Parts: sequence; C-alpha cells; structure tokens
Amino acid sequence: MISEKMRPLVENNSVIRIMFEEGNRLAAIYGRENVFDFSLGNPNVPAPQEVEDSIREILDEEESTFVHGYMSNSGYEDVRATIADSLNRRFGTSFHQGNILMTVGAASGLNIILKTLLNPEDEVIVFAPYFLEYNNYVRNYDGKIVIISPNTVDFQPNLDEFAEKITAKTKAVIINTPNNPSGVVYSDATLTRMAEILTEKEAEFGTKIVLLSDEPYRELAYDGVEVPYVTKYYANTVVCYSYSKSLSLPGERIGYLVIPDELDSSEEVFTAATIANRVMGSVNAPSLMQRVVKKCIEKGAEVNLAAYDRNRNRLYEGLLSCGFSCIRPQGAFYLFLKSPEPDEKAFCEKAQKYNLLLVPGSSFACPGYVRIAYCVSYEQIERSMPAFEKLAAEYGLKG
Amino acid sequence: MISEKMRPLVENNSVIRIMFEEGNRLAAIYGRENVFDFSLGNPNVPAPQEVEDSIREILDEEESTFVHGYMSNSGYEDVRATIADSLNRRFGTSFHQGNILMTVGAASGLNIILKTLLNPEDEVIVFAPYFLEYNNYVRNYDGKIVIISPNTVDFQPNLDEFAEKITAKTKAVIINTPNNPSGVVYSDATLTRMAEILTEKEAEFGTKIVLLSDEPYRELAYDGVEVPYVTKYYANTVVCYSYSKSLSLPGERIGYLVIPDELDSSEEVFTAATIANRVMGSVNAPSLMQRVVKKCIEKGAEVNLAAYDRNRNRLYEGLLSCGFSCIRPQGAFYLFLKSPEPDEKAFCEKAQKYNLLLVPGSSFACPGYVRIAYCVSYEQIERSMPAFEKLAAEYGLKG
Repeated sequence: MISEKMRPLVENNSVIRIMFEEGNRLAAIYGRENVFDFSLGNPNVPAPQEVEDSIREILDEEESTFVHGYMSNSGYEDVRATIADSLNRRFGTSFHQGNILMTVGAASGLNIILKTLLNPEDEVIVFAPYFLEYNNYVRNYDGKIVIISPNTVDFQPNLDEFAEKITAKTKAVIINTPNNPSGVVYSDATLTRMAEILTEKEAEFGTKIVLLSDEPYRELAYDGVEVPYVTKYYANTVVCYSYSKSLSLPGERIGYLVIPDELDSSEEVFTAATIANRVMGSVNAPSLMQRVVKKCIEKGAEVNLAAYDRNRNRLYEGLLSCGFSCIRPQGAFYLFLKSPEPDEKAFCEKAQKYNLLLVPGSSFACPGYVRIAYCVSYEQIERSMPAFEKLAAEYGLKG
Repeated sequence: MISEKMRPLVENNSVIRIMFEEGNRLAAIYGRENVFDFSLGNPNVPAPQEVEDSIREILDEEESTFVHGYMSNSGYEDVRATIADSLNRRFGTSFHQGNILMTVGAASGLNIILKTLLNPEDEVIVFAPYFLEYNNYVRNYDGKIVIISPNTVDFQPNLDEFAEKITAKTKAVIINTPNNPSGVVYSDATLTRMAEILTEKEAEFGTKIVLLSDEPYRELAYDGVEVPYVTKYYANTVVCYSYSKSLSLPGERIGYLVIPDELDSSEEVFTAATIANRVMGSVNAPSLMQRVVKKCIEKGAEVNLAAYDRNRNRLYEGLLSCGFSCIRPQGAFYLFLKSPEPDEKAFCEKAQKYNLLLVPGSSFACPGYVRIAYCVSYEQIERSMPAFEKLAAEYGLKG
C-alpha cells in the first residue's frame, strides 16, 4: 500500500524512538526513577514564565480572529520585524522583516528551504557527527547526502575532506552549531575557512552553494562561549531557527528561516520558500505562538540555562571520574562519550543492563561514540552515577 | 537559484493571494468599508469562547513541559482517544486512538497521506470544481492530477466520467464535501455509487485506490442537511480534517487524519504517515492546540453557525433578486455564482470596478463561474448589494 520511498523509513523506524519505548518498558519493570533515560532531546526545563504570561496577555488584548486567524504565509509582519531587530541587536546584522519567514519549527524550515533549492540528484553535504534525520529531509526532494567523516580530535568539521568532496552538483551544506550530538560550537576559525572554501568552489564550478545553518541550540552555550552568526561569514547562508530549546516549546513547532538580502536571488528564494511553506501544507507557522514569540522577545525571556549547565558539569565531571573520556561540551544539551570498546552498540547494550539508555554514535554517522542527552533532572544524573561507575568497572576503567 | 519544481509556482503565484493584495490596494484608495472583498476563505466568526477558556484552564492545570513538550509524532494519546470517541458518538463509527493522527491542519494531513501513498507517476483523481492547491500537493510527490469535468447541473461529481478515467495507475481520489467552492454536500447516493465504482475498479485492475476525504467544512452545513461520513461507504478511505473552520482556528494549524482499521494495510499506513509527519518537518501537530481540541470536544464547543447561515441566506436571496443565478449552497461558506458572460475572468474584472472582489472559477478548474466567500461581516454583505445590483444592470439582468 505505501510508497517505495516510505518503505525503508518504515523498516528502519528511528533508533531513538525505539530506545524511548525501551525506556517505557524498563520503567514499567523497575520503576521510572530507576531507569536512567539519556536518549531523548526533549527539554526538561520548563518554558520561561514569560510564555504563560504572554499567552494570557494576548488572550486579554487581542481579537480571536486576529490571534488564531490566517496571516501572510510568511508570518505576521510585526513578529518578523521584532525577530529581525532582535537578531540585529545581538549579532550586529542588518535584517528586516522581509528576511524572516516564520516556520513550523526548524525541521519544517529545513524542509522548506531544501524544497526551494534542490533539484533531483543535487548533493547536500553534512559533517559527521550529525542528526541523521537530515538524510530524510534531503531525500524528500530527491537530493543526495554527502557525508564528511568526523574529526574526533575536537569535533570541528573536517574541512580538508569538505574541500575535496564539493562538486559541481553540490547545492547545499548543512551545519548544526552548537552541535547535536557533540555539544561542540563551530569556531570563528572553522567558519572563516569554511566560507573561503565555499567561495573558492563557487568560483571554480560557476555554481551557487547555500550554507544552511540549523540553529535550534544557538542560545544553549556555556562558559561564555560565543556562537558566531553564520551569515556574517558567508553571503549564501540561510539560518534555520527554532524556539524549541530557547523557550522550551518543542511541541509547539515554532521557528523561522533567515533569508538574508546578501543571498544570491534573495527575493526569489524568499518568495519560493513562502510558497513552499504553503504547498507543503504548513500554510503558516502556528499563529498564537508567533504572537507569543514577539512578546517573549520584548520581555527578554530566556530559558533557565543554569539548570542545563549544572547538569553538564555534574555529568561531565562524573563520567571523567569514572574513567570515561569525552570532549567537554560547550553547547546544546548533549555529551558525546567515547565508547570504551570499538563497537559502541555493544557498549550501549551493556549500559542497558544498568538501566542506562544511551544512543549509539552510529545514529549520528559516528560509530565508536555514544550520545548522552542531559536535558533531564539533576536528580537523574546524580542517581545514575553508581550505574555509570559499575559500567566503567566492567571495562576496567579507573577514575 | 531555486529548483525547477518551484519555478512555475513562483511564476503563477496564487490568484487568490493576488486578489488579497488588490483588496488592500483598493482599501487604501476607497477605505476598507467600501471594498467588498469576497475572495478569501478566512473565517470572520470568532473562535467559540471555549477555546479561550480551555487555553486558560490548561495553563492553570498542566505543567509547561507537558503542554509545550514533544509527544508521540502521532499526537497525545488522550487527545486522539477523545476525537475517536466523538466521531463514534456522532457518526456511528468504531474508531480508536490508533486511527487518529494529529496533523498541522488538513493541508499538512493531505500532504502526509499523499507522501505515504504516492509513487512517481501515480494518478490522483479530483472532481472539478476543486481547490487547485491539490495540484501542488500531488506534484510534491511526483503524482499526476486527473481532473473530472464539472457537472454544473447540481455540482455533484460526474461519476460516469470518473468510472472512465480510473486506470491501473490510479492510487487516490480526493473529494471535498461540503465543497469549496460550490458549497454542495456530496449526497448519500453520490457516495454510494462512488464506492461501487471504486470497488469495481479495484477488482478490475487488482489495485488499491484510496479515497481521501478533505473535510475542513464538515461542521458547516445548513438547513439540517446531513454530511455523510465517508468511511462508512468505502473501506479504503482516509479522512483529512481541520479545526480551521469548526473552531475558527485557521492560523493555528490543527487537524487530524483518520486512518480506519478497515483500510488495506491500515497499521502500515498509519506508521508510514506518522513517519511522514516527522520527516516532512512537522514532527507533531502544535501541542497546546491539541490539548485545546480535547477540552473543546468535552465542552461541546461549536462555532456560531447561525452567523454564516444568516450571511448565506442574505447573499443568496440578494443575488437571485439581482437576477444572478447560482445553486443554493448547503455547506461551507462559499457561493458559486454563474457568470453572466462565458468568460468569468472578464466578469470578475467588471465586478472589481464596483469594488467587488470575486474569485474566477478557473481557479477551481470550473470556468464560467465565480466563487463568493461569505465568511465576512453581515454588514459587508448588506453594503455590497447595491454594487451587485449595478453589476447585474450592466448585464441587463433582472430580479
């Protein structure tokens, strides 16, 4: 009954989702508090109070037909202007509302821009480790994923291999910084060199290559690390943003695309992306949440970053003292642990014996590592430490 | 820069949208109250009070991480169960939560099920007059639209031509009842015969043909007319529903698919559609609005149908007394007027001289007619009547 394209997706239903169900199964046996589920990127920090306040104010102040009604397919003009101003204040950019397209989260934003750009067989480059769902987004438009192998020294992208793998068919490059799953923030040096390579290759092949910056974790950066704004490095950049993490609204599906004036054929791309938003059935981003975003920006709402930071420090120190090794994450809410045995899936299975649910790095095109999502309660991290210690002991690791 | 597939869409940007901009232009010149914009299907009736009440209650009662968080890609289980129960009570069906998939409105639901079903070159049959956006939805998955010509006697679908045009490549049929733009409700006799034809043709070709029932106007039916529930006529039916009109929430993008147990390979189709919801980037339907839908069903919330009905009667009687002719609409909020000259685009241009904005039937594959959307204020209808009279006089029509 189902299409050929959907068949492999049904067969390989997301590993992460299966893990989620395994967590429920274990919780039913051992009790939820004794299962240490580090598998899902579902924010545990509540939305800032400004979200609820904004919703109530909007209901008090505005007409129902305005709050819940259709607007331009690209979103409410005043919301888009507020977002542009906020970006300009924080990053020294010069955006205006005509650069902002409201979307049903960053995932829908990525789909919209890929539909806008890709012809069949066009190549899209990604850097391992990366969110494997990008493969599906690219395949939706008959593009081809080209994977750059991971640099496991510092998890900055491997730019030599990148330069080699760009071809005349390369239409887009997807980056994700702060990175899921490594927690690494791509540095100023990385983005500078990446932009140089892209500019050289555009000239060499006489093509346009669009850098898609998927940034749902932009506001989740620790130790004062700066997350460079990618449009400042390379003109042909489109930013895919979501409020899933910065306002803890993952279920609400609210985000935006930034399509800067500097992008080649910017207006045409903006128009096409707005139409793609419509014809793919989103029509527009959810209306009430668009209005909430505007109020939250005006109120300066921020998620409780300190809670994630506390988790990060506790987990990182705890794992090191067990004898595990991993790079210190600078952003997002993931820690990417080196598996003590080459087959990280076997390691995940051993971890499961201690009710520890981790995601194998193969799910991010980076075997030999596992992802630990620390968007969980601090208590879960505390309570999981003896389990991690036993797991380390099984490998003869020492703190 | 943009893809080949997007190019024609950018070139032929929606006529309805251009009309919307023309409305704004005229309003700037003549004042909003002197422009009679009947072009857009944007509900003017406010959401029922239960929507606002439900939002406030949910904020009072529930945790932020639950209300705004991720859930299963198919939606909250309790919301889906409530919807299934409500359908069962009203239509004598036997759905359960496993048949309901929450979507980002009906447009996204249609996209999801088309992605689930279509292989390239598969044919999808539609009945003129129809919402031309279906063409874009079908092309998203490289399917081919097959149009059945309109039956302008009573605007029930032309079933003889339908039977002739079904081929071994026919994968789906889209119907929309109550219909946009005709306002007609497909009758029991129509659906009975349609189901017979589909069953015969499935047997003849050894194929499965899925009937997609796009039902955003289901609750907008007048004069006590019954809108038959399509799954009761034909097993291979999927219903695409939206709360855009029944709760006046078009901007919120909240709806669902019904994938009945009776559908061939029902579980596989449900799983594939859930994955399609994820990989196309919707991920899930907006979470707060899912919760609102549940409460609104429990409270028995209904849109103010009497307001639309009053508009319908005033407009219908008014147009008839001008000498225009049209079928009396039974549902939705559209009236499909016969153009007094064969070229209905020329008629729309003449109407525009009187600040009347109507949509040509060509935009619904039905030239010779025009769509008048009466989801506007009663006052607009009242005030527009002298303009319609002058327009009728220009054609020498008599009441």
